[in-house]
Amino acid sequence: MKPPVTVLGLGAMGTALARAFLAAGHPTIVWNRTPGRSPELDALGATRATTAAEAVAASPLVVICLLVDATVHSTMEGIDLTGKTVVNLTNSTPDQARDTAKLLDAAEYLDGGIMAVPAMIGGSAAFIFYSGSAAAFEQHRDTLATLARPEYVGTDPGLAALHDIALLTGMYGMFAGAIHALALAGSEQLPAGSFTNRFLLPWLTAMLTSLPRIAKDLDDGPAEPAGSNLAMQAAAYDNLIDASVAQGVDPSLVVPMGDLLRKAVAGGYGEADLAALVGVLRTAAG
Amino acid sequence: MKPPVTVLGLGAMGTALARAFLAAGHPTIVWNRTPGRSPELDALGATRATTAAEAVAASPLVVICLLVDATVHSTMEGIDLTGKTVVNLTNSTPDQARDTAKLLDAAEYLDGGIMAVPAMIGGSAAFIFYSGSAAAFEQHRDTLATLARPEYVGTDPGLAALHDIALLTGMYGMFAGAIHALALAGSEQLPAGSFTNRFLLPWLTAMLTSLPRIAKDLDDGPAEPAGSNLAMQAAAYDNLIDASVAQGVDPSLVVPMGDLLRKAVAGGYGEADLAALVGVLRTAAG
Ligand SMILES: NC(=O)c1ccc[n+]([C@@H]2O[C@H](COP(=O)([O-])OP(=O)(O)OC[C@H]3O[C@@H](n4cnc5c(N)ncnc54)[C@H](OP(=O)(O)O)[C@@H]3O)[C@@H](O)[C@H]2O)c1
Ligand SMILES: NC(=O)c1ccc[n+]([C@@H]2O[C@H](COP(=O)([O-])OP(=O)(O)OC[C@H]3O[C@@H](n4cnc5c(N)ncnc54)[C@H](OP(=O)(O)O)[C@@H]3O)[C@@H](O)[C@H]2O)c1
Repeated sequence: MKPPVTVLGLGAMGTALARAFLAAGHPTIVWNRTPGRSPELDALGATRATTAAEAVAASPLVVICLLVDATVHSTMEGIDLTGKTVVNLTNSTPDQARDTAKLLDAAEYLDGGIMAVPAMIGGSAAFIFYSGSAAAFEQHRDTLATLARPEYVGTDPGLAALHDIALLTGMYGMFAGAIHALALAGSEQLPAGSFTNRFLLPWLTAMLTSLPRIAKDLDDGPAEPAGSNLAMQAAAYDNLIDASVAQGVDPSLVVPMGDLLRKAVAGGYGEADLAALVGVLRTAAG
Repeated sequence: MKPPVTVLGLGAMGTALARAFLAAGHPTIVWNRTPGRSPELDALGATRATTAAEAVAASPLVVICLLVDATVHSTMEGIDLTGKTVVNLTNSTPDQARDTAKLLDAAEYLDGGIMAVPAMIGGSAAFIFYSGSAAAFEQHRDTLATLARPEYVGTDPGLAALHDIALLTGMYGMFAGAIHALALAGSEQLPAGSFTNRFLLPWLTAMLTSLPRIAKDLDDGPAEPAGSNLAMQAAAYDNLIDASVAQGVDPSLVVPMGDLLRKAVAGGYGEADLAALVGVLRTAAG
C-alpha cells in the first residue's frame, strides 16, 4: 500500500495535487479553509479533515498549497509538526521560503516551486523544483514524483523559489518580446497566426540556441571575439523604439533593454557580448 | 553566365554579401566610401568602382548595405537610376523605407531586412525579408537567394522593415528575460551552464509552444476560458520583482511587464489571457 499524504489547500492547484495522489492510490487526507470545496475529491476517495491540525496529524507527509506565504504562516501556527515532513508548494520568494523553513523547524522541510498549471499536474511536461532537507527529498521522492518530475536543487530552502522565479522572469521576458512583436505585426494588420508560425516562432526557436553560448561565456569568461558587439547593438536599438512609436505601439516593454545596452557600453563593455549584461544587471542593483 | 550585381558598402555585412555573390559566380562590382576596404574581395574577382555612380552604372541590380538610412540618402543623391533595380538592405524603420522608396522612385525598389549576422550569409539558417516591387522581386529572386532564403512580405516597402523590427523586439525580449534569469541564478552562484541547459533552455522552448495559441486568440478571438488569467498573473508578478531586488538584481528589465499586466487588469481584462496584452499595448501608445 502507498503511504498516506495530507494536502492543505484545495484551490485550483491543491485540488490537482490531491487528484494526482488519489489517482496513484495514496490515501489522501485533505483540508481547505472553506469546507466542501472541490466535492469531486470525495468520490475519488479523499478523506476530509475538519481542521488543518487534524489533517496534519493524519499523515507523516504534509503538502501545503495555499494562496501566499502569509497564508501558510497563519494556517500552520500552533500545529504540532514533530516527526512530520512538510512540503510547501505555495509560491514564495527565496527569503520567504527560508523564513518559513525556520518557522516550521519542528518538521523536515522541503520548499517547492511548481513549473506547471493545474491541468499539467500528473502529466509528463510538468516539473517541480525542490530544496531543503535532502533526507526528506530522498524519502518522499517517489510520492512527489506522482505530481510532476521532481528536480531537487539544494539544501538551502530558498533555492527552489529562486529557480522558479528565475524561470518565470525568463518566460515573461520571452512573452513580453512576443507580445510587442505581435503588436507591431497588428499595426499593419498582418494576421497573427501566419506571422507567428512562419516567422516569430522559428526565429525565437533559432535565437534560443545562443543561450548555451551566453552561459558558457559567464562560466568560463568570453571565449572568442563577439559576432555583434554591444556598441553596435546599442546603436541599432533606437530604430526598434522609434519604429514602435511610429507604428502606434507603446514601447515600454522594449525600452529597458536599450537602457541596459547603453549602460553597458558606458561602463566599458562596448566590445563585449550579451553575456556582459548579466554582470551589469547585478551591479546596477547594488 | 550569371547576371552582374553591384554592391554599395563594404562594411562587415556588405563584404559578406559581395563574397556570396562572387562565390556564386556573379560578376560583382563593388564600391565603398573608404577605398580599398576588404582587399580579399579583389582576389575573389570583384571589380572596384571609384564612385557610387560608376558602380550603379555597371549593373542593372544594385544592392545597398550602408550604415544607416541617412547614409543611403547622401550616397544615392544625384545618381541616375533609370532602368535600375535597387535593393536596399540597410537597416531602417518602416517609415524610412517608405521615404527611401519615394526618393529613389526612378528605380524599381525593394527594401530588405537581413535576419542574420555576416557569418551566416550564404548559409541555410539566414533569411532576408523583402518588400516593395513584386516584379523586381520575381525578376531577381534567384540572384537574391544567393545571399539567404528570400521572404517577400508585400508591396508596401515598409513591410520588410516592420517584420525585421518585430522579430528583433521579440528576440530582445527573450534575451532580456534570459539575462535576468541568469542574473538571478548568478546571485546564488549557480553555474550558468547547467542552469541554462537543464532548466532555462528547455523551459523557454516549452513556453514558446504557447505562441501559436496566443496568435489564434488574436485572429479568432479568445477561444476557451484561460488556464491562468491576467488577474492571477498580475498578483503573482510582484514576487518576481521583490525576489529580484532581494537577490541584488536590478529589476528594470522585468518591471514593465508587471505594469502592463496591472494596466490590463485595470482596463477590464482580468479574466482574459496573455493575448489581450497585445491590444493594451497598441491602445496605450494612443
Ligand atoms: N494555478 C497555477 O497555475 C499555479 C501554478 C504554479 C504555482 N501556483 C501556486 O499554488 C498556490 C495555490 O494556487 P491556486 O491556483 O490553487 O490558488 P487558488 O485557486 O486561488 O486557491 C487558493 C487556496 O488558498 C486558500 N486560502 C486563501 N486564503 C486563505 C487563508 N487566509 N487561510 C486559509 N486558506 C486560505 C484558499 O482557500 P478557500 O477555498 O477557503 O478560499 C484556497 O485553498 C499559489 O501559491 C500559487 O502561486 C499556482
Ligand atoms: N552586421 C550585422 O550583424 C548586421 C545584421 C543585419 C543587418 N545589418 C545592417 O547592415 C548595414 C551595414 O552593417 P555593417 O555591419 O556592414 O556595418 P559596418 O561594418 O559599420 O559598415 C558600415 C558601412 O557604411 C559605410 N558608411 C558609413 N558612413 C558612410 C557615409 N557617410 N557615406 C558613405 N558610406 C558610409 C561604411 O563605409 P567606410 O568603410 O567608408 O566607413 C561601411 O561600408 C547596417 O544598416 C546594419 O544595421 C547588419
